[in-house]
Amino acid sequence: MNTTRLEAFSDGVIAILITIMVLELRPPEHIGTWSQIKDYLPELVPKLLWYVMSYVYLGIYWSNHHHMLHVTTRVNGKILWANLHLLFWLSLVPFTTAWLGSSGNAPIPTALYGVVLICAAQAYTMMQNAIIKLEGPSSALASAVGRDKKGLISRIVYLVAIAAAFIAPWVSDALYAAVALGWLVPDRRIENTVHHRPS
Amino acid sequence: MNTTRLEAFSDGVIAILITIMVLELRPPEHIGTWSQIKDYLPELVPKLLWYVMSYVYLGIYWSNHHHMLHVTTRVNGKILWANLHLLFWLSLVPFTTAWLGSSGNAPIPTALYGVVLICAAQAYTMMQNAIIKLEGPSSALASAVGRDKKGLISRIVYLVAIAAAFIAPWVSDALYAAVALGWLVPDRRIENTVHHRPS
Amino acid sequence: MNTTRLEAFSDGVIAILITIMVLELRPPEHIGTWSQIKDYLPELVPKLLWYVMSYVYLGIYWSNHHHMLHVTTRVNGKILWANLHLLFWLSLVPFTTAWLGSSGNAPIPTALYGVVLICAAQAYTMMQNAIIKLEGPSSALASAVGRDKKGLISRIVYLVAIAAAFIAPWVSDALYAAVALGWLVPDRRIENTVHHRPS
Amino acid sequence: MNTTRLEAFSDGVIAILITIMVLELRPPEHIGTWSQIKDYLPELVPKLLWYVMSYVYLGIYWSNHHHMLHVTTRVNGKILWANLHLLFWLSLVPFTTAWLGSSGNAPIPTALYGVVLICAAQAYTMMQNAIIKLEGPSSALASAVGRDKKGLISRIVYLVAIAAAFIAPWVSDALYAAVALGWLVPDRRIENTVHHRPS
Repeated sequence: MNTTRLEAFSDGVIAILITIMVLELRPPEHIGTWSQIKDYLPELVPKLLWYVMSYVYLGIYWSNHHHMLHVTTRVNGKILWANLHLLFWLSLVPFTTAWLGSSGNAPIPTALYGVVLICAAQAYTMMQNAIIKLEGPSSALASAVGRDKKGLISRIVYLVAIAAAFIAPWVSDALYAAVALGWLVPDRRIENTVHHRPS
Repeated sequence: MNTTRLEAFSDGVIAILITIMVLELRPPEHIGTWSQIKDYLPELVPKLLWYVMSYVYLGIYWSNHHHMLHVTTRVNGKILWANLHLLFWLSLVPFTTAWLGSSGNAPIPTALYGVVLICAAQAYTMMQNAIIKLEGPSSALASAVGRDKKGLISRIVYLVAIAAAFIAPWVSDALYAAVALGWLVPDRRIENTVHHRPS
Repeated sequence: MNTTRLEAFSDGVIAILITIMVLELRPPEHIGTWSQIKDYLPELVPKLLWYVMSYVYLGIYWSNHHHMLHVTTRVNGKILWANLHLLFWLSLVPFTTAWLGSSGNAPIPTALYGVVLICAAQAYTMMQNAIIKLEGPSSALASAVGRDKKGLISRIVYLVAIAAAFIAPWVSDALYAAVALGWLVPDRRIENTVHHRPS
Repeated sequence: MNTTRLEAFSDGVIAILITIMVLELRPPEHIGTWSQIKDYLPELVPKLLWYVMSYVYLGIYWSNHHHMLHVTTRVNGKILWANLHLLFWLSLVPFTTAWLGSSGNAPIPTALYGVVLICAAQAYTMMQNAIIKLEGPSSALASAVGRDKKGLISRIVYLVAIAAAFIAPWVSDALYAAVALGWLVPDRRIENTVHHRPS
């Protein structure tokens, strides 16, 4: 089976996840002037920042997913389920983001945000391995991935952030944001590999 | 007509269904520390487990739908409606899952969960038959399907689970989970048939 | 421009509309035994029936849209907007369905349901004309459509149903359902034309 | 990488955004006769008008996005993120529309509506530039775009509307509507360029 429907389905799920988070930013009723809004801003601004962070995380996953499948030629049932497993953890991001917002950065939801990120990272690696197993060690993906140093560092930072949530939750937020920024710097491995190969 | 749009539309609907269920897991307001969360966990954990189960069921339907249409070459109006009929029953899964969660495994919603699963299974078989009727008895799908023993057993287990809901709802939950696990084991019939045929 | 993205976008919008209606069927909290549910059924059953009707209407539009674009070879900016105009009226179907349900078949929402259906029917015809104008009078679509008798009868029935809403709303419901049934009978015009032409 | 998935993902996101706004038009419970509805109309009608305006804006972005990618042959990581950046600002349109409605055209939300529109316009130009940078100054897009006079005027009008929100919000509404109307008149630049070139 080729990758068309797996891509279309994943695009659909990630598109929905990335947009339903905005439903959490419910505007307050009957607040519209500057004096009324001052009390609402301390609630809105952090929610907006967490929304931006989760949006960037889902964008990173979509972009990496796109790169990964760009060098994948076919899929089997195992890869379909590895993909569904990845999407499952991503589907919990709107939930943890909403809880982070409604609890005002409380320890448990702050830690849980990182737990879901670690599980998603793990699911991504599992899917990558399932593809490499099918495509073989000389495939474009296998040579593009190499040793996944960035992925390892991310996971260590997540673990530190989860522990920090019980002492100083804002430190966790900063660490989550730092990892996101680290991934925003484009990962040129696959693009380079592809450009250097005749496709 | 070819299968492109039928696949795209189904991907869209299933992607939405699989993600809107997560909206039911609404995080409680202002709960974030360990002492506060203890009262919330007995409500969250079963909801999360039912979410996982319904996610797996929709994933199974998506995966099987993918396999089925992979060996389908063309569609007609009858198949479009057989597909819409299948999607209708799947669209009720978030409703029955939410009710299961909000009622705390009460008899009626527990039974209703199984009724919707039986109807979806029946709709899937009807769609399969509509495709085989158009493609002919010597088509790839017809030879891949053969006698649908797994489908028959699932339906019997669903019926037992529906009856059990009025005596011990947790038995029903276990039975629903068992059927889902039985389908997670990949169904190699179509993949094998396709691999053994020149496409 | 070809029709790929117009189809994909329309598939996405209709898939969302057809599934968000199910969010209106919110299960009641803490109701799960037979004695408790008796008071809830008179509320749930009509909502479920209206959901089925709106689901069928959106399914009909998707199916006819599919047939129409199957014989369309290219689109221009005018057709893109004719399509957005059609999707706009369809986007109001979940709203009118929800109002019909929450008001218990009250006159105004019952009439409004029909107004939206007439506007959608009109928008569909406008889109069809825009395609025929671009493709020319000898195109597959132009010869497939011919005189749109079914569309005309539907509109007359909608008008009667809108008027009836202020006297006996259940008559309107029956008329809306009758039109839906009339369209469920597959419209063979386009399929026949296509089959008789070498594509 | 080709543009297929970027288009599919954007179609998904814009389809969701354009339809979730309709969820804001929640029908009131138990209102259905003419006498009851009179008090509800002053609330519903402006909400409906703002919904139409935001629907048209998202339609314009989708249509222009479609035209732009129609003349784009390939994408890189930078363009993927320029696209995600554009979708981010568009994702805030349902939020600002809902706030506009719930606050009854209050100064801050009215101004914010324009701020989001300016940011989306800017993000669109940035994406356009990223594509032209990859495709080269002699590409179809570069020659189709030329000097973006319409975009410049739009931004000036937005700025005036934002300022006007603090004096007379209905003037802002009129200005936003005027810009939307100005874009509804089809932008023939890309269609003409494409038609004059052999593709």
